[in-house]
Amino acid sequence: MIEKYNIRTDLALEQKERFESDQVEVQGVVLEEDYDEEREIKVTTVKIETENGAKIMGKPVGTYITVEAPNMAVPDEDYHREVSKELAKFLSRFLKTDKEDYSVMVVGLGNRKVTPDALGPHVVDNLNITRHIIKEYGKYAMGEEHVRLVSAIVPGVMGQTGMETVEIIRGVAGEAKPDFIIAVDALAARSSKRLNRTIQIADTGINPGSGVGNHRNAITEETVGVPVIAVGVPTVVDAATIVNDTMENLIAALESSEALKGVGLVMQGYNATEKYELVKELISPHLNGLFVTPKDIDETVKRISYTISESLNLLFSGEEEQ
Amino acid sequence: MIEKYNIRTDLALEQKERFESDQVEVQGVVLEEDYDEEREIKVTTVKIETENGAKIMGKPVGTYITVEAPNMAVPDEDYHREVSKELAKFLSRFLKTDKEDYSVMVVGLGNRKVTPDALGPHVVDNLNITRHIIKEYGKYAMGEEHVRLVSAIVPGVMGQTGMETVEIIRGVAGEAKPDFIIAVDALAARSSKRLNRTIQIADTGINPGSGVGNHRNAITEETVGVPVIAVGVPTVVDAATIVNDTMENLIAALESSEALKGVGLVMQGYNATEKYELVKELISPHLNGLFVTPKDIDETVKRISYTISESLNLLFSGEEEQ
Amino acid sequence: MIEKYNIRTDLALEQKERFESDQVEVQGVVLEEDYDEEREIKVTTVKIETENGAKIMGKPVGTYITVEAPNMAVPDEDYHREVSKELAKFLSRFLKTDKEDYSVMVVGLGNRKVTPDALGPHVVDNLNITRHIIKEYGKYAMGEEHVRLVSAIVPGVMGQTGMETVEIIRGVAGEAKPDFIIAVDALAARSSKRLNRTIQIADTGINPGSGVGNHRNAITEETVGVPVIAVGVPTVVDAATIVNDTMENLIAALESSEALKGVGLVMQGYNATEKYELVKELISPHLNGLFVTPKDIDETVKRISYTISESLNLLFSGEEEQ
Amino acid sequence: MIEKYNIRTDLALEQKERFESDQVEVQGVVLEEDYDEEREIKVTTVKIETENGAKIMGKPVGTYITVEAPNMAVPDEDYHREVSKELAKFLSRFLKTDKEDYSVMVVGLGNRKVTPDALGPHVVDNLNITRHIIKEYGKYAMGEEHVRLVSAIVPGVMGQTGMETVEIIRGVAGEAKPDFIIAVDALAARSSKRLNRTIQIADTGINPGSGVGNHRNAITEETVGVPVIAVGVPTVVDAATIVNDTMENLIAALESSEALKGVGLVMQGYNATEKYELVKELISPHLNGLFVTPKDIDETVKRISYTISESLNLLFSGEEEQ
Repeated sequence: MIEKYNIRTDLALEQKERFESDQVEVQGVVLEEDYDEEREIKVTTVKIETENGAKIMGKPVGTYITVEAPNMAVPDEDYHREVSKELAKFLSRFLKTDKEDYSVMVVGLGNRKVTPDALGPHVVDNLNITRHIIKEYGKYAMGEEHVRLVSAIVPGVMGQTGMETVEIIRGVAGEAKPDFIIAVDALAARSSKRLNRTIQIADTGINPGSGVGNHRNAITEETVGVPVIAVGVPTVVDAATIVNDTMENLIAALESSEALKGVGLVMQGYNATEKYELVKELISPHLNGLFVTPKDIDETVKRISYTISESLNLLFSGEEEQ
Repeated sequence: MIEKYNIRTDLALEQKERFESDQVEVQGVVLEEDYDEEREIKVTTVKIETENGAKIMGKPVGTYITVEAPNMAVPDEDYHREVSKELAKFLSRFLKTDKEDYSVMVVGLGNRKVTPDALGPHVVDNLNITRHIIKEYGKYAMGEEHVRLVSAIVPGVMGQTGMETVEIIRGVAGEAKPDFIIAVDALAARSSKRLNRTIQIADTGINPGSGVGNHRNAITEETVGVPVIAVGVPTVVDAATIVNDTMENLIAALESSEALKGVGLVMQGYNATEKYELVKELISPHLNGLFVTPKDIDETVKRISYTISESLNLLFSGEEEQ
Repeated sequence: MIEKYNIRTDLALEQKERFESDQVEVQGVVLEEDYDEEREIKVTTVKIETENGAKIMGKPVGTYITVEAPNMAVPDEDYHREVSKELAKFLSRFLKTDKEDYSVMVVGLGNRKVTPDALGPHVVDNLNITRHIIKEYGKYAMGEEHVRLVSAIVPGVMGQTGMETVEIIRGVAGEAKPDFIIAVDALAARSSKRLNRTIQIADTGINPGSGVGNHRNAITEETVGVPVIAVGVPTVVDAATIVNDTMENLIAALESSEALKGVGLVMQGYNATEKYELVKELISPHLNGLFVTPKDIDETVKRISYTISESLNLLFSGEEEQ
Repeated sequence: MIEKYNIRTDLALEQKERFESDQVEVQGVVLEEDYDEEREIKVTTVKIETENGAKIMGKPVGTYITVEAPNMAVPDEDYHREVSKELAKFLSRFLKTDKEDYSVMVVGLGNRKVTPDALGPHVVDNLNITRHIIKEYGKYAMGEEHVRLVSAIVPGVMGQTGMETVEIIRGVAGEAKPDFIIAVDALAARSSKRLNRTIQIADTGINPGSGVGNHRNAITEETVGVPVIAVGVPTVVDAATIVNDTMENLIAALESSEALKGVGLVMQGYNATEKYELVKELISPHLNGLFVTPKDIDETVKRISYTISESLNLLFSGEEEQ
């Protein structure tokens, strides 16, 4: 049965939904939902509280907050500002530091040259970088009571650097010595309906399998030495996922269809695992390495990356606290 | 039955194969194959000779040459030079002009900001543009016996310009007055195996439904006033196509599988159209506007666009004739 | 004497200043200044009213409004919004149309691949394009009382297209049939102090010599068939201009310096033309084709182009009228 | 007198020329010239052999090889291949390693978003990266007898990262552990005639003041832990340099001109330092932060960066040794 649930999603919310749709209760995982009707923003918090919950969910213990806003890809500047503020509020809860004047490094994960994977680099492009100014002129140069040393890096992907992304981040973090890292990445969703309208933040860092580029090593406090907050936006669906979904619909239809009643009877003779195996062998092996993305992905990545940059700029300026 | 064949492909070769796999003979369509074993380059020519053939194929009367080279996405400069020469040779056959000193406009179709759709713009980036030099200094400025006035344009896509691409090309061609146009575009293939290794050239121009961005109006001699040669490279597969393919595999398996013999018997009671309808209603409607593309599409587009630029530079310099 | 004043500037304001500094009164040219102390925005209007004034100024009859704001290159979103509104207000005065539902084409002049020349293309990147939506779904699709059909084009530069920019614009305008054109371009200033803080709008179109890329043909109502409003931002100074300025300083110093009194006396024996000739022959001939630009030009172009896009989006949405 | 020679140039060759033009002999510095008439490639080797030579030259002890090829910016692929081979040959002499299977990290210095500063990033874009493949599949995966682990990084500039470039490189090199680094950078020349045709390689690393972006800290074996070979191409001239040059021409003219004999006599009464001071105070202070670059810098950077990438690809594949 586990096999059925290992279709790839980087969203904790979707993993949870999948169990719910089968009325499977997952121990050690708590879900909370909140809906702001006026602004049409839905916030879902998934807390994985136990190692057992983590094992079943296939994701580490931690808190995953998903912000869904259907108009996120629409060019409405005021609406984006609202989402930015909301996001900054949630991010501020994750900051594991007592310092007022903390130092943070933002990491823009992904490949700048592949549109749906360019979200992280685009977020970094619009940040207000301050570390070098404060280092040179002191904190009073900023004209604010509290200052945050903001640094940033776009590490590139393995095919461009010859290095694991975690190696680059660990090396640079060892020099810049931030109090924590915020890593921004493009994610793979299970459902194409989640594309272009969802932002997930998590206090668990980035784990293998996350992201369009499928980082092979975790980017977490254990591997880079400081806490890592992850900000992710689903921009693609794995090709295998989309095929699998439709196949499941077909089997369900075969089982229930009046017209195909005969088939249904036969299919009912097979258990879930047998059916899943049947589907699996029919999924073309050359779907590996293929992803599915919308045609207007350039506009979406531009808009959502700007919303996240603004959110981080608000957070670091301290304005989100008001 | 026609419905079965209207799954989208921009490759004439794939459309033809589809009929062949069903042992359907299409009148008015001739196919020739040629394989260069040493260089591993396969060339297929599909000639649609009659209006009836055009109707069945869903593509206009004309000649479609497909060059397939499995190593096209590999960084081997010498190999790319071979493919460039081969391509230039075929393109030279399509030039419908008696002039030695012709004027040509290259159009780089597609969206520069969406990686798999950026092929056309990238090809234009690497062309040797000469029209303005010859206009100003005369043909002897080039130091060659024969000169070709090469101009180029990247018209962008409708979401960026607010105009149909054909409007822009018609307007610019009316000013630049080229003898013919070469339009370069990213295409949608039926099979993901064709991605990254195939170039199609056609003397029919660009027709509705071609390209990643799905131009809505034809770009042909009728619409822009001068002959249009199309150069296309499949860089994506429609999401609906990939799902449909796997569904067909499933039904075929149900019909033949030992283990599922009972299902097979039932399915055999339905004819092709009924089965196709069954599949169609299960294909998720939100697959519209989604495409499938490989993760290393940035490298592929860079390499193949360079091969095409070099091919056009060879062609226009007259060196391909030697 | 004319020669002394033909050092290149694309700003009418600077040309006027140059005469003023010599206490030369230019007939047929009127200058108005307005300073908004609170927002630190200075607005200067130069009206060239007669052909004689035009001849002396080296610019066509028309109105040139210059908005100077020292903080234009600073990342302060609220301040930029103010400048956007101010600009939209002035632009609305130039709209030569009675139609509420006019059609406008924005042209992003310049070379996207040379940072200080990429201003025009960047402005187009951030526009809300509506023409294709209104053409397809009607004006009520926009949900506004009045709608403007906004189209846009980035024609590229001659080295990329082989065509004069005016040819491309005339051709495309002939198809899109806008009521007027707004052409956005990077300009050359006389003084490096004007870089990064100045926007000039003019109802005269673009004239030869304007812009970093030095368009050779005018882009005006005469050449493209509809009125052309020009929006320009100085991003470079000609290398020859900067050298010339310092040389003039040197000669002035030689004439007045106590230490170099002897030299001064000799220099006073030469008239302005002789001195100018002396300077001219010393200016290195290989300064041609060189321009001077600030090191942080990427940030400046990003910020100011965004301010202009927002201004145009305001203007076309009708919100600037409130 | 030192002051006279501290006008900025990143080319050792130009620094040496400056002393020569004054017939000043610099002890501890050796110059060798070599000219390949057929291919029009001039190679100059400047060896700074003593600390005294280093002090006078304002550059560290080491070997600086300058390759000048007037056609480097011309689109002639065969010619570029020749330059690539020549460059690879010289680079191979600098490799301070006995290992056949060495590990190298290429660093693309500079700002990708400012055209003349984007040379380093562009070089990295076209490298064959192998480290990750060899790490995963072993050296035999490459199908070559000897393999080189090639990694690469584009660290960005301080305004983008908030970090000194040397911090990032040191951190990443500490993880990737290359045997040596090759750092590629855009340089400032003294003479605009050197732009677009010159490549300098040096075994001294990158020192403060080098590069368009003016790195403040050295990138050398001392600061990053492994030897650093520098590859640089002059793409800009400081604005102050160009002004200074013309001023010197003016003073020379004043001293020798028949027409201005009187001035000449007076000027001769002042020594070199006094004259230099005169010039210096007339150079506009707001020339700081301004650079001079050619209008076609996009084409030049594209071509020369490709030549350098090919050279490095040759070097690392071992083909340059044949």
